[in-house]
This record gives sequence, structure tokens and C-alpha cells, in this order.
Amino acid sequence: MSLIVQKFGGSSVKDAKHIRNVAGIIAETYLQGNDVIVVLSAQGDTTDDLIAKAEEINPHASKREMDMLLSTGEQISVALCAMALEGMGLPCVSLAAWQVSIQSTSVHSDARIKKIDSERIRAELDQHRIVIVTGFQGVDRNGDVTTLGRGGSDTSAVALAAAFRADLCQIYTDVDGVYTTDPRLVPNARKLDEITYDEMLELASQGAQVLHNRSVELAKKFRVNLEVLSSLERKPGTKVKEVTKVEKTNIAGVAKDTSVARVALVGLEHNPGVAFQVFDLLSKHNINVDVILQSIGREDTKDISFTVHKKDLEETVQILTDSKQTLKFDHIAADDHIGKVSIVGAGLMSNCGVAAKMFEALYEAGINIQMINTSEIRVSVLLDEDDVNRAVKAIHAKFFDEA
Amino acid sequence: MSLIVQKFGGSSVKDAKHIRNVAGIIAETYLQGNDVIVVLSAQGDTTDDLIAKAEEINPHASKREMDMLLSTGEQISVALCAMALEGMGLPCVSLAAWQVSIQSTSVHSDARIKKIDSERIRAELDQHRIVIVTGFQGVDRNGDVTTLGRGGSDTSAVALAAAFRADLCQIYTDVDGVYTTDPRLVPNARKLDEITYDEMLELASQGAQVLHNRSVELAKKFRVNLEVLSSLERKPGTKVKEVTKVEKTNIAGVAKDTSVARVALVGLEHNPGVAFQVFDLLSKHNINVDVILQSIGREDTKDISFTVHKKDLEETVQILTDSKQTLKFDHIAADDHIGKVSIVGAGLMSNCGVAAKMFEALYEAGINIQMINTSEIRVSVLLDEDDVNRAVKAIHAKFFDEA
Repeated sequence: MSLIVQKFGGSSVKDAKHIRNVAGIIAETYLQGNDVIVVLSAQGDTTDDLIAKAEEINPHASKREMDMLLSTGEQISVALCAMALEGMGLPCVSLAAWQVSIQSTSVHSDARIKKIDSERIRAELDQHRIVIVTGFQGVDRNGDVTTLGRGGSDTSAVALAAAFRADLCQIYTDVDGVYTTDPRLVPNARKLDEITYDEMLELASQGAQVLHNRSVELAKKFRVNLEVLSSLERKPGTKVKEVTKVEKTNIAGVAKDTSVARVALVGLEHNPGVAFQVFDLLSKHNINVDVILQSIGREDTKDISFTVHKKDLEETVQILTDSKQTLKFDHIAADDHIGKVSIVGAGLMSNCGVAAKMFEALYEAGINIQMINTSEIRVSVLLDEDDVNRAVKAIHAKFFDEA
Repeated sequence: MSLIVQKFGGSSVKDAKHIRNVAGIIAETYLQGNDVIVVLSAQGDTTDDLIAKAEEINPHASKREMDMLLSTGEQISVALCAMALEGMGLPCVSLAAWQVSIQSTSVHSDARIKKIDSERIRAELDQHRIVIVTGFQGVDRNGDVTTLGRGGSDTSAVALAAAFRADLCQIYTDVDGVYTTDPRLVPNARKLDEITYDEMLELASQGAQVLHNRSVELAKKFRVNLEVLSSLERKPGTKVKEVTKVEKTNIAGVAKDTSVARVALVGLEHNPGVAFQVFDLLSKHNINVDVILQSIGREDTKDISFTVHKKDLEETVQILTDSKQTLKFDHIAADDHIGKVSIVGAGLMSNCGVAAKMFEALYEAGINIQMINTSEIRVSVLLDEDDVNRAVKAIHAKFFDEA
């Protein structure tokens, strides 16, 4: 007998039909003799509807009250799912985060899970009940409801899997696994049977939308076996774990991200601490910086280039311009018409031919590379936004069709 | 400075406009220097919408899960109301019953409040915050959410008023107070400035829909000053308290109830314990019996007549028929085409002319009385259903127009 955590997203529980489908999956798992903890998101549009209600009353409502409002969404999901399982004659109980209790920090709308009390869930599992828990939410030490921000429900599921040492944590979505690249763009993209945590992390942060990084990081930390699979098709998905097949010769996948913009500070004085000043300033304004490149400029000056999210570009330029006197640079160049394409694979950088193969594919496609950035298991290139899709196709073909 | 509890029902918070109106009333009370605890029901149709969702998935869902589902309704209301108050720049906090905590019995869908922890609310009041609490719900000793059944939100408000020794508990509804009779039926019905708990109890149980008996009983027990008033008109309502004007000469009001049916067991043997057997049997099936009348029948037999709710009539007849051998009666007569009209007033029965005045009104209107039942402060008559409205008008005219 195993303990399995199953998480279903909002589109998987969007109406009565979908909830019955989800109940069917849960029932099958339970009737095979497993203990099951289920984590659910709010139904389809519920969160948007609640936000609209709030906006109508007060567009600047406090995050504390927004969390109080939005957390009802998951509670509706878990109650309805429990009713569906009751209808199938299965013992079950729905629990809100405060009942579990999933204790979090007090940062409303973006809280972090601190601790999960195992007592209540353990008692319910001992009674052979299926336990259905609200995802995306917690309760802080004052007893106030919090929400966990982006990727919150996945994180709830992984945290529960870690707390109860679950044998498997299944994340059900509307895709059937992790692909070598976006199947909508490259029709012969392949579903991966397995992927390592690190590969998944790089793919996720490089634009693959399947799993949020927070949940993968937590899974890696507590060695939680993840599986990404579809709630609509009953077939194996992609397993995310510490080590996959030993003799892997290929990359795991190709990811794209067109939400980035490039900023360059040109003509910085060549003094120590300049880079620190720049990025300290931006971090104080909560602006996340990704690919960073520093180069020697003309006449003893240097340039620093980096990428930010497109939505942060305007603010970034403003902040830097405001500090022009302190930072001492010549001018700022900004470009929001760029995109990032990455290849990800365990041990990629220790396999020297791989990066070259990527650049070769781009060269053959006549695509110009603006910036290059690498990690142990990833190579990213910055390109003109118009070239991004063509680049993904060319690289994917190079690695997977010629293989 | 006073502590005032204000309760608003579902129709008072049904949309953004109404919530803003409610926030205005709360703000006015708070800005006059009072501490304010607000109790809210779920918005207008929310509960019905949630029930419809549940029915679609499982028409026989457990009450435990229904409570989990339905309790989201009030949570949405309190969060939205807090947002409206935030928008007016007022300090406030919304709290669910489990946060307060309002501890209840475990009878899902019909729980009773056992205890209210005052710590959290007291701390918030000390911070000069307006506290907005979910009505209609509690949390049991297992940490499960319960709902309080009919009249639940009024009961929550009165319980909070009792726990915090509030100076006043205002119940805002869509009518502006308690009337001498239904104003839709009798246009010159008068709004009462004051009424005693007992009068209110009798009026409520005799069909006046303004306040539920549970909340009035609780208010009487803890001497909570109640006021029933309209959320749409800013004017005084009806005060419900222990003693009203001393020299009251008139009745408080005329109530009707057409939800009753009459059952008669004819030809019962004249043995001791027969009445006990009959009503014990019915109470075991959770059937509430109202007016009971016993009379000597022909030839040493007796008849027992009583009223039940119309919805219970069929089951009542079935239960009694099934026990015909044990109870030993001749036959059952049932009539669901009846209604009950009552006059209510403190000290009514010690004022011997009052009952006679009621019967006189009915006689003058040519209306036949089927059964009569009295309490210390009430006289009820059972009539043909078709005569009910005419009876109310005649009695009301007798007591109020001729006065």
C-alpha cells in the first residue's frame, strides 16, 4: 500500500462533469489499496469571478481581505469533490488549509508554507478516508487565511507529499506530461518519460508552463517523486525525480520565453562595485533580473546587459535613469522585442558538443544570437523576438529528428 | 461609547451597491464613537447557487460537506464588506466563525452555539477595528465547520451580543420593524416601537417572519436588547426588550400561519397514556406538533386533535396508521385546508376582555372557529384556510381601528 498525493488544477474541476471525472481518478487510486490525499485548486473561473466582485467594491482592497475572499474558491472545490466521492460510496473528508493545518508566513497573497500539522490528516487516513485538501492557501500564526501566490496549489501538494512522506505526488493538468518543447509549436515534440528535478527547474524557469518552480524546488529538497499527467487521459505522464536513466545522451528539451526584455547600461565607469550597486538597486524595487552579461566597452568603460520581465521594463529604466548620477553611465539601451530560447539537460555543459550543436542549428537557420548565458544544465540564447519560434523548431529538429 | 452588534441579512448584501449601503450604516455607527461587531449572511442567491452546484454532483451529499460548501457564502460577504469599509478608510477585519471562534455542537446543518472565544474579537476591538463576522456558522470540537440552520445568522448576532455584553443588537432586514400584523395584508398595520421578548416569541412562532424564535429566545435568556430595523431606510425600528411601556392596554399584534394542517385521531380508547404514546411516536420521527386538543368522544372514547406542519401531514398520517393496532383508534381525520390566526400581547390572558374581543370580531365577520388554543400571552384560533386573511383584517380592525 502506498500513500499518493494527487493535485488537480482549476480546469480539471471546472464543472460537475469534470469533478466527477476527477473523482473517478481518485476512486481508482483508492480502490487499488492506496492512501490518497487530494489537493484541489478553485474551479475554473471562480477566482476571476471573486476578483471581479472585489474590484467592483474596492479596487485597492487589502491583500488580507483578498485572501479571505479568494480562499473560498478552493473550499468550494474540495466540498464538491467530497460530495462526488460520497456519491460513489467512498469514505472521504474535505479539509481547508486551516483545518489541516497548513501553517504559512503572513505575507498575504504570496505566503510561504512553514509547517504542516500531520495530526488531523493522519487520523483521517487511519480511518481509511480519502482526504481532500484546499490547495493554494494556508493559515498564519494569527489564524488569518493566506494564499500562496503563483504555483501555490502545486506547492501545497508537494508540501503535503513531503510532510507525509508520500510515495508519489501526481500533478494532474491539461497536458499529459513534459515535452521536449511546446507541442503546439513543434508537432513532433516528444513526451518525456522521466526528467530530473534540475532539468525540470530549468525548463520551468525558461518558459515551460507545466510546473511552477516553487513546487519543483520543494520536491527536490524533500526528494518527493513527482509525476505530471493529464486528468483527461488515463496514461502515464512524466516522472520528475532525482536521477533518471544513467546513460542519457540527449537534452531534455527546448524552452522559449518571450516575456523578457533586455536592458543595457552603456559606458559605465570601470570601478569595483558597480554591478553590485545596479542589481542591489533593482532588487530593492523587487525587480527580478535574469541573464546578466558584462563586457568591456570602449575607453576603459564597461557595459552591463541583463534581462528583466517585459512588464518591469519601464520601471527598470526609470529607476536606473533616476540614479544616473550615482551609477555614472553614458546611456541606457532597452529592447523589449527579444526572446529567449534554452536547451536543458543534465550534464549538458560537461558534454562539450551540445552547446555547439545548438549554435550550429541557429547558424543553419540564419538566426543571430544577441546574448548567451549558460548554467550547468542549460544553455540560453537571446534572440530577436521574431526569430524565437523558428529557433525552437530548428534546435528541436537538430537534437531530436537527427538523433 | 457603546458596543453595538449589527446583523445584515442576505438581501441587504446582495450586490456591490447594497454592500456599500451596509458599509455606510456601519461607518456611521463607528464614527459616532461606538465599537461595532458586524454579522453577515451570505449574499442574496449565493446559498441557492451553491446548493444547485451540490445537487448536480450529489443530491444526497452529507450534511458535513454541505456545511463546508455553504459556509463559503458568508465568508465571501464578510471579505467584501471589509473591502468596502477599507475603501472608506476605516480600520476593519473580517473573521470566519472558526477564527472567532464560535464553537458549536456537531449537528451539521443545524448546530447550536456552545461558546464564543472572546480573545480575537476583543483584541481587534481594542485596536479600534470594526469586526465583521460570518453569521450562520460555527466550528465544532473536531474543527469541522457547521451551519446553524434556520435563523442562524440572527442567532450568531445575538450570541455575539451576549458574549460581549453589547449595549444593542440591531437586526437589519428588508422591513423596518415589527408590525401589528402583515402590512401587505392590512395596509394600516402599525409599526410597533417596542415589544417584549415573549410577545416577539409568540408573534414569531405564530407566523411573523421578522425574527427567528431561536434568536429571540437567546436574546431573552441573556437580556440582549434587540432592535429590528430596515437597512434601506435610516429610521428607528422596533425594540425588543424585557419590559415595555407599563400601561399597555392593547395587544401587540395579529399573526397568521397557513402552513399548518390538522390531524384528528377519532375514537381512541379512554386509557391513560394514550396521548403520551401518540406524541412520543411522532417526536421520534422528528415531527413537531403544535396546538393540541383533547375531547371526550362518544361512548367512552375520546378524540385527540393537533396541528402539524403541512409538509409533515402525509408522514404523520402514515406513522399513525401504521400504529393503529397499538394506539387503538377508530379512524384518522386530516385537513390541510386550515390556517391559524393569533393575537399576541403581554398580560393578555389576565385581561379577560381581550379573547372575547377577538371572538367577537370573528363572529361579526361570520367566520367559524374550529379550534382554540391559548397561552399566557396569546390566543390562537384554527380556521378554514379561506377565512384566514379576512379574519386577520377583522381582528386587526377590532383592536387597532376602534381603539
